[in-house]
Amino acid sequence: MSQRVAFLGLGVMGGPMAAHLARAGHSVTVYNRTVSRAAKWVETHGGARANSPAEAARDAELVFACVGADDDVRAVTLEDGGAFESLGRGAVFVDHTTDSAALARELDEAARARGAGFLDAPVSGGQSGAEQGVLTVMVGGEESAFTAALPAMESYARMVKRIGPAGSGQLAKMVNQICIAGVVEGLAEGIHFAKRAGLDTAAVIEVIAKGAAQSWQLDNRHATMLEGRYDFGFAVEWMRKDLGLALDEARRNGAQLPLAALVDAFYAEVEALGGRRWDTSSLLARLEHTRN
Amino acid sequence: MSQRVAFLGLGVMGGPMAAHLARAGHSVTVYNRTVSRAAKWVETHGGARANSPAEAARDAELVFACVGADDDVRAVTLEDGGAFESLGRGAVFVDHTTDSAALARELDEAARARGAGFLDAPVSGGQSGAEQGVLTVMVGGEESAFTAALPAMESYARMVKRIGPAGSGQLAKMVNQICIAGVVEGLAEGIHFAKRAGLDTAAVIEVIAKGAAQSWQLDNRHATMLEGRYDFGFAVEWMRKDLGLALDEARRNGAQLPLAALVDAFYAEVEALGGRRWDTSSLLARLEHTRN
Repeated sequence: MSQRVAFLGLGVMGGPMAAHLARAGHSVTVYNRTVSRAAKWVETHGGARANSPAEAARDAELVFACVGADDDVRAVTLEDGGAFESLGRGAVFVDHTTDSAALARELDEAARARGAGFLDAPVSGGQSGAEQGVLTVMVGGEESAFTAALPAMESYARMVKRIGPAGSGQLAKMVNQICIAGVVEGLAEGIHFAKRAGLDTAAVIEVIAKGAAQSWQLDNRHATMLEGRYDFGFAVEWMRKDLGLALDEARRNGAQLPLAALVDAFYAEVEALGGRRWDTSSLLARLEHTRN
Repeated sequence: MSQRVAFLGLGVMGGPMAAHLARAGHSVTVYNRTVSRAAKWVETHGGARANSPAEAARDAELVFACVGADDDVRAVTLEDGGAFESLGRGAVFVDHTTDSAALARELDEAARARGAGFLDAPVSGGQSGAEQGVLTVMVGGEESAFTAALPAMESYARMVKRIGPAGSGQLAKMVNQICIAGVVEGLAEGIHFAKRAGLDTAAVIEVIAKGAAQSWQLDNRHATMLEGRYDFGFAVEWMRKDLGLALDEARRNGAQLPLAALVDAFYAEVEALGGRRWDTSSLLARLEHTRN
């Protein structure tokens, strides 16, 4: 089923996601703040380029956004020239940005007021997941909007799961990042300890990977951590943004996140070491730096 | 190949491990501090019962111990009536207890002085791993001693890995526990946050289990954590013993373990809640208690 879709934001995530939509046969109109990037995308993948989010969203059945943070989402939705100026009755706006649950609820209301649907739908799987079309999508919003947008999302996702009402997708993504914060700091301290103890760290990892200490991070990050290589993956500055959303939400809902708060502070130290763009596994670099 | 083996300590780990040795055709002599437990073991599994570790170790080719902590190991090795009084030339003593690397090095020297071998060989996999004979064993010690003891250990282990010289097994086990500390606290905070945010927590777990937040703990503990059930698994008091060993060793080798130290303090709070015997996943109970 070919649909008229719009895609706002053609970064390392949005670019390949929009490309999967085009490849699946959808008619894609794109918008990007930096015009040259949108022009290049159209040259490569076809479709059309719009001069504003409002222009891109006009007549679209589905409008996707994947931009930076709350402010960037506001700029392409609620502000002048934003998609909500032209979002049609019965259309669905899907926000793939990781942003606040409060913004998701606000956009949900604004969409309803126009007779449109809204989904907050942050993703995990990173740049390579986007490129390979195997992302995981955590969705909040109405079941009807979810059903309407699901086939298109499946062009770039391996798993798309509706968690609950508007905001639930963002909150689920926060749970994901909180869990990762603990896994990565534990792994970093484990490897740091192993190195200080003079162990054959690769041998230790091989054996503990078979038991209760196993994790995706251990399986997929131990080799680069042992090499001290962090020039790839999910950047520290993005992780700090996400942990900031979780810590902010926790102040509202009363959850205690002592570990997540501590790890956020550690990431601030990684940034101070010049690691703003390093992979999240660079918590090990912080431990090693302090030791030198 | 049937060997003359001795097994010291028939607790929830040692009992089933010794039983696997008997089932594999080895001639097993057992010793346990509480005599009735050893008598019952012999009644069930055959073999012989000794009145002291020294008596059990006499003429044994391999002597295994799986007791509580450093002091218990000293009692069955170096002290009066201990196995090292009778440990034969060419025999190998295998310590499956999780204890200090310093003790491992001391026992290694004491064994050498008698012309015997020594392996520090802490296990992971818990009571069910021992019962099913699928433990993981992290080994420190000489290659020759390792080769001599390997076939017998394979009767209760799925993976037996030599990490390096004496003490390396204990240090590897510490790395394992450090990693677990991070994973479990992150998972506990994630689930706690999800519940406070009013999410369908099972749905969240289902989706995040597919990505970068995945871990053995998430896969195997989320269901019981959601039920608030902790009456099984690896006890908090054992975890505290192990984290204590790691923190103590870290003071020596200069590693920084801020997260492991914090989680140890959290486990102290779980103990104060009556959770000394609860599974390590009970870090969630601590977060929930403070909120009530």
